[in-house]
Amino acid sequence: MRALRLHRETGGGGAAGGTEDSVDAARALRRTARRISASLHTFRPLLDADWSERIRPELAWVSGTLALEHACGARLERLLLALHRLSGAAAAPVPARVGVPTQAGPAAPASSAPGRGNLTVGAAKAGALLDRQLTLARTRAHSTALQALGSSRFHAVADQVAVLASEVPLTPAAGTTDLRPLAAAAQERLADAVAALPLVTAGSPYNAEALVHGLSPDPAPHPQDTPWHQVRLLLRLHRYACEVLDGGPGAPVDVRLLAAGQALDRHRDAAEAASAAAQAARTPRIAPATAYALGVLHADQRHEVEAARYAFQRSWPKRNP
Amino acid sequence: MRALRLHRETGGGGAAGGTEDSVDAARALRRTARRISASLHTFRPLLDADWSERIRPELAWVSGTLALEHACGARLERLLLALHRLSGAAAAPVPARVGVPTQAGPAAPASSAPGRGNLTVGAAKAGALLDRQLTLARTRAHSTALQALGSSRFHAVADQVAVLASEVPLTPAAGTTDLRPLAAAAQERLADAVAALPLVTAGSPYNAEALVHGLSPDPAPHPQDTPWHQVRLLLRLHRYACEVLDGGPGAPVDVRLLAAGQALDRHRDAAEAASAAAQAARTPRIAPATAYALGVLHADQRHEVEAARYAFQRSWPKRNP
Repeated sequence: MRALRLHRETGGGGAAGGTEDSVDAARALRRTARRISASLHTFRPLLDADWSERIRPELAWVSGTLALEHACGARLERLLLALHRLSGAAAAPVPARVGVPTQAGPAAPASSAPGRGNLTVGAAKAGALLDRQLTLARTRAHSTALQALGSSRFHAVADQVAVLASEVPLTPAAGTTDLRPLAAAAQERLADAVAALPLVTAGSPYNAEALVHGLSPDPAPHPQDTPWHQVRLLLRLHRYACEVLDGGPGAPVDVRLLAAGQALDRHRDAAEAASAAAQAARTPRIAPATAYALGVLHADQRHEVEAARYAFQRSWPKRNP
Repeated sequence: MRALRLHRETGGGGAAGGTEDSVDAARALRRTARRISASLHTFRPLLDADWSERIRPELAWVSGTLALEHACGARLERLLLALHRLSGAAAAPVPARVGVPTQAGPAAPASSAPGRGNLTVGAAKAGALLDRQLTLARTRAHSTALQALGSSRFHAVADQVAVLASEVPLTPAAGTTDLRPLAAAAQERLADAVAALPLVTAGSPYNAEALVHGLSPDPAPHPQDTPWHQVRLLLRLHRYACEVLDGGPGAPVDVRLLAAGQALDRHRDAAEAASAAAQAARTPRIAPATAYALGVLHADQRHEVEAARYAFQRSWPKRNP
């Protein structure tokens, strides 16, 4: 109980600092919302059900809204880096894209930007197209996040979270409930989900599994990715539950779990980057060279997906920790 | 010496049967020419230098001319299979392409052919384009091979090879020369070339090395492939030299050497298929969807290249056999 309360306090602190509206504060806020939401999920039986069901979607809205801007920026950076790597120009400096979003109009093709001199026409045009599309998406996400942070809806969530620091709406039985079975249940859900993954396939390198639907007519995200994304979320819930039991976010974490989590983050990032490349290739009236470069880029990112699965399989302890 | 002579006899027999002009005979002829040429190279000091230098380019011309037709057919089959795999339609039957070459005109797009119903427009168009280009190349190679087989140049080579069965133009010292040092030298050249390969990189899966120049403006074959192709040739020379020492092509071969050789064959095939896809993407006025599919296909085949290197590294005995 003490740990849970401590956890809330950390959460409240992060949320209070979030109104500063800097990149760091947004990230802290996003993480806090995610962490609180995760604890509410894992330790649900301890908490007032009505209150819990009211606040969880709100926390998801906060973290989702704040995550989008960062995701667009990171995705663009990942794709531009890959384009340079694929052009054998890995040493060329990539312009920093994680700062303030700017509008890149079609009048400024990337081929004229510094550090892109080594790209082919196709790679340069593909980079310019992705830059345009993802910068636009990022600018929109930025506006949406700004609006959200100024909204009464956000302030209501912030108030509720601030209250958590002193006053958690526990159920009457909460004081006597052992947290460990709840944390163990979270771990078991994770273990079950991992057991359902095609780990044998993932463990044999170059299985060419991730690109199986690389040219499929279905524009939806690859269904084969879903169980991996699910494990990523369950792994996070498990990690947060461990933190609560061990005394807060500063507690030492199993390095193998960290490596597994990083592999799954990479899996998610690469899968989304591959989608963005495929999406960009559907832009009407692009040049064949641009489309070709986007095809190579898509396949490259899908192989990153496969590589991340391999890395996860290697890092995952064969016996449950 | 006995073994070398036996080898010549096998060679002469294969060459004599080659005038039947069937696919099998052409393959036997090609292999025989390659095998004799390899023995001439490895055991060069035993043979009359003038004669040897005269016949080796001729043998290379025979095997090269005959190999091209088969290579075009195999490349097309590999690329069409990959397109199906990438479309998640691996179960669909691929039309047999290894038979008699036919002219596939632009009037018969692949999307209407049976077994291609599951392809996207881009994949189907890419398949049709590759079909057109590689079938044309194959038809040309077929005509060239037919012309070659009927030429006086070919008959001169065939006569010279037939004479080998009874009468090898040896140097005066050949009768007393030990073959083993010559075979050992071939093995050493192989070992040196393997030692120069980036095997540490190849042994760590998903190193993303093979696609490093995937979008490079240079249309030439990847320079990073060259040492691998070289090892493939040296491995063949070594295997043939072993056969000569052990008593002919029927002698048992080290299975690890076989696996290593197969990996290098796959490396070569995938590298050439990737080039063909990149080449097709440079066709003027193709649709963006076609170019995109060819980009995915190119990257897929370059990953096959990387996978083949990994397989070679795994199969290669850590200590020389």
